[in-house]
Amino acid sequence: MKLKFITTNEGKFSEFNDALSGADVNLERLNMSYPEIQTESLEGVIAFGMQWLDKKIHGPYVIDDSGLFISELNGFPGVYSAFAFRALGNAGILRLMGGMRNRKAIFRTVIGLSINGHHSTLDGECEGTITATERGESGFGFDPIFRPSDSTMTFAEMNIGEKNALSHRGAALRKLKNTLLSSPLR
Amino acid sequence: MKLKFITTNEGKFSEFNDALSGADVNLERLNMSYPEIQTESLEGVIAFGMQWLDKKIHGPYVIDDSGLFISELNGFPGVYSAFAFRALGNAGILRLMGGMRNRKAIFRTVIGLSINGHHSTLDGECEGTITATERGESGFGFDPIFRPSDSTMTFAEMNIGEKNALSHRGAALRKLKNTLLSSPLR
Repeated sequence: MKLKFITTNEGKFSEFNDALSGADVNLERLNMSYPEIQTESLEGVIAFGMQWLDKKIHGPYVIDDSGLFISELNGFPGVYSAFAFRALGNAGILRLMGGMRNRKAIFRTVIGLSINGHHSTLDGECEGTITATERGESGFGFDPIFRPSDSTMTFAEMNIGEKNALSHRGAALRKLKNTLLSSPLR
Repeated sequence: MKLKFITTNEGKFSEFNDALSGADVNLERLNMSYPEIQTESLEGVIAFGMQWLDKKIHGPYVIDDSGLFISELNGFPGVYSAFAFRALGNAGILRLMGGMRNRKAIFRTVIGLSINGHHSTLDGECEGTITATERGESGFGFDPIFRPSDSTMTFAEMNIGEKNALSHRGAALRKLKNTLLSSPLR
């Protein structure tokens, strides 16, 4: 089955490709953006985006919205993670958290799948902590400062397979793979 | 003329009312929200909002989108000021800027006016600096940490009239008042 992944983020595309191997999917990247609304839920961004994209895209497609929700920062940067990363970087988050002892954070992903106008959402989350310094160079975004609870490494210290095994996006991608494998539209 | 101001922000409504006195406008507040897209320009948010609102609102209306753009933070919080204020507050901005000597910032407003499906935008800006501590209790949002270049006081140390005389929103509101006074639809 041919599936378009609409994303400007090359790192996400690599993770999708890795996780969907064996799903008999021919994933094609469409490097375009779509309107993302300001809301405090990833689900809201995805629903609005699919409504807009349905009018523009022919054939099945997926989109992904993810965010890092830090407890002591009231969920910041959350839905605005991409913007906050561009403006403040990892250094900005570490500065905001200077001296904070509660470093709990959750990475969340919501994937939207549209097949013939039928929408599904697949989500995943990963609990962890914000490290004291940046560690590692793989991945993208906030990966160097996030260590999942089940690991001693940050996401940026892992390869794609290791990251997908533990990450929010990996969890959502396993659900996506199952959905695709059981789809009557294959 | 009857004009609806669609805003969930009571402080903005007070500033509009103060600045539009003498414009022969009956300003009515509509406490509802509309989709705001994630973009790096206030103009983008306003244009998208008016497109959506045109289908819902009868009669002339205005909306306001404003943001604080801090040089050393690459324009953060900018278009996401309302969200960043809720999550981080003034204390968060001061923490982010700890030790930074360049404290230049610009407050910007874009007002969208829709009359019979015809759209105008009126903008205003105010240069200033981010103070070292919070000062004053008037206004709202980042007012306690922003001191306009032409004043020794922060916005939060001024009354509404003083703030409107110097502020980004006041400048945009003077343009709005002129536009309304010269409108053939009065």
